[in-house]
Amino acid sequence: MQLDEWGEHARRAFYELRKTTSNKRNAALLELAKRLEDNDQQTQILAANAKDLQEGEGLSGALKDRLRLDKNRLLSMARAVREIAALKDPVGEIIQGHRHPSGMEMVQKRVPLGVLFVIFESRPNVTIDIAALSLKSGNAAILRGGKEALHSNRALHRLITESLQTVGLATDSVLLVTDPARELMLELLKQSGSIDLVVPRGGEGLIQFVSEHSRIPVVKHDKGVCTLYVDRSADLALATQVAINAKLQRPSVCNAIENLLIHREFARKKELLEALNEAGVELLGCEETRQILPQIQPIPTEEEYATEYLDARLSAKVIGGVAEAIAFIQRFGSGHSEAIIAEDHRTIEEFLTGCDSAALFVNCSTRFHDGGEMGMGAEVGISTGRLHVRGPMGLGHLTTTTWVVLGNGQTRS
Amino acid sequence: MQLDEWGEHARRAFYELRKTTSNKRNAALLELAKRLEDNDQQTQILAANAKDLQEGEGLSGALKDRLRLDKNRLLSMARAVREIAALKDPVGEIIQGHRHPSGMEMVQKRVPLGVLFVIFESRPNVTIDIAALSLKSGNAAILRGGKEALHSNRALHRLITESLQTVGLATDSVLLVTDPARELMLELLKQSGSIDLVVPRGGEGLIQFVSEHSRIPVVKHDKGVCTLYVDRSADLALATQVAINAKLQRPSVCNAIENLLIHREFARKKELLEALNEAGVELLGCEETRQILPQIQPIPTEEEYATEYLDARLSAKVIGGVAEAIAFIQRFGSGHSEAIIAEDHRTIEEFLTGCDSAALFVNCSTRFHDGGEMGMGAEVGISTGRLHVRGPMGLGHLTTTTWVVLGNGQTRS
Repeated sequence: MQLDEWGEHARRAFYELRKTTSNKRNAALLELAKRLEDNDQQTQILAANAKDLQEGEGLSGALKDRLRLDKNRLLSMARAVREIAALKDPVGEIIQGHRHPSGMEMVQKRVPLGVLFVIFESRPNVTIDIAALSLKSGNAAILRGGKEALHSNRALHRLITESLQTVGLATDSVLLVTDPARELMLELLKQSGSIDLVVPRGGEGLIQFVSEHSRIPVVKHDKGVCTLYVDRSADLALATQVAINAKLQRPSVCNAIENLLIHREFARKKELLEALNEAGVELLGCEETRQILPQIQPIPTEEEYATEYLDARLSAKVIGGVAEAIAFIQRFGSGHSEAIIAEDHRTIEEFLTGCDSAALFVNCSTRFHDGGEMGMGAEVGISTGRLHVRGPMGLGHLTTTTWVVLGNGQTRS
Repeated sequence: MQLDEWGEHARRAFYELRKTTSNKRNAALLELAKRLEDNDQQTQILAANAKDLQEGEGLSGALKDRLRLDKNRLLSMARAVREIAALKDPVGEIIQGHRHPSGMEMVQKRVPLGVLFVIFESRPNVTIDIAALSLKSGNAAILRGGKEALHSNRALHRLITESLQTVGLATDSVLLVTDPARELMLELLKQSGSIDLVVPRGGEGLIQFVSEHSRIPVVKHDKGVCTLYVDRSADLALATQVAINAKLQRPSVCNAIENLLIHREFARKKELLEALNEAGVELLGCEETRQILPQIQPIPTEEEYATEYLDARLSAKVIGGVAEAIAFIQRFGSGHSEAIIAEDHRTIEEFLTGCDSAALFVNCSTRFHDGGEMGMGAEVGISTGRLHVRGPMGLGHLTTTTWVVLGNGQTRS
């Protein structure tokens, strides 16, 4: 297939998909789950994955872990596909409707979004997740995974193609870009006539590249520089457990915290910082924090507070109160997730009104900023943009709408 | 103000606006309406408008008409502002909410979108409409009207600034670009750090320019190449009245039809075409239509069907049925509005399932594709994109969302 034909091929598949029923698309998903659970298929996928791991010997331990597949991970991929198949189809949902004074029935309903171009890195389960979410909602998808997972993605994509064939859906419904050249990605980013949405998931460099070069609307899944503010009215035990969870439960994800702000008048500053230190958090901090706990390393510059560590590191700062916390978040945060630990009602209100982020947490962990936790069943990612969707991007966000107006001769005067 | 400071100024005003109440923003709108109704103010605006008309002597009659203001038009602008003030504020609306199994309350609510950059042509009432809609929903706006309306827009913008001052809102909440240079627009289109949304309303050239150069998300208000299909099962009287309304009631707007498809077996083809001809529609058509009515001019090429006339012209074609109509719309249409005139239920179903446009009309006029008619009260425009909003863009589409999660120590495991 020529570079400039990818979008067109996917678009034609989309026009076919639009006409299919949920039943048929679910059947393809169940075929896919069955294949992921099949012993022979598993052997082939794991062999392909072993090849990726071998070629990626120079990769970091964390990256290798993200890349590595085993039987359990394949089974949990199959389970995710079955869960997606069991979700309610967003297509056809009536969003609003009313009768026009002239008697026309006006109804706005969800229809598939179109052709999605999803760009992601390393984790091969994303290939299956995105393919399943796209098919479920009647969209065609062009997938571009990281080159370090190429063999695994090829093997997984073969299962998708076979599943489509088995139930009689167009195999172009899910295309996989196997050429890692950036030129190919650039070429696809220009095909605004046939591709409707680009979703980049990955590092800052990728997101910036896509945002700058795309002629197609982009829903970004950008970095999370998330902040936890501990007010003077906070409960120590609660602050400690939430801070440790928000930093350490899974440091490599976007909804983990990178900054900890503590009210100067919070009496238990020392205990909080000590607990974090003992839990294994590598602390950096301002002068005041270092006077409390000398093990804290000094913050090199203020800009450090805008860094996404994706690691057990945390930057701490002592501040004067909630207004200062809001100003700090406005300056250094990425608008992803912020949390406050406080018992004082008015302080909480001020924090919630002053912060303009995708999700705000009161006395609980930022780690709950997640489609599954927020009741969406499955997510394409977490959008850090302000248009179309902000926060977890679920199945419903893979649709657009059509107004259908039924009349009997109405004309406008 | 320096070029690169516009976005920043608007952003700071936005942060102030976010904190204000609906009452306060409505007060600014009522101040604005009062000024538009004031005799002395009207005299000044009409003098500025006369200057625009004088400098634009070379403009076409239609453009001059769009540009011209009089007391009645100013009063209807004031009425529109009062209507917007009376609408429900979308900010704060709870979209969804539930209790997490762990006891946290999770609520998704509407918050203002941010800083809007709205680019439009000629009609000065747009300046007032957009300013009012932005303020109503807590957004800051940068407006760039056409250079032919510069004096009028300046005079109107002065009223906006005075109204903001009177109630104590930041005057940077609504900025007007008075320098018509494209470089300034280009510079603003790069300020993705401070501007959240670009809305271009106008000709194809403008839309394309903005889409190509913007680093900021764009909601397009593109052309409408709309098609009316008259099935063999159609009622002649109904088909005639809808076709005439959809073409002639206001030919210069995007929801007027440009193409008429007639089923070959529709027995009253001749009467329909004659009625259109007699109503003053300038018809172009395929060979078959010309055999029915020789006054019809020949279609030069097939590409003619992709033309937006914005005039009393209409391209007609005789076709074999609804499947052909769907293929025609897919090829030549712009995804804006399509209509079918038919009595046969299954044909209507096929049309509705097969067409992928922002609005579909059965036995009524495409002219109803309008925010006011669809019950939204007021509209920023009609979006032809598929993301964020498709179809009429109302107040609710000038918001984004925040998830607020209230807990008492919940951590993720």
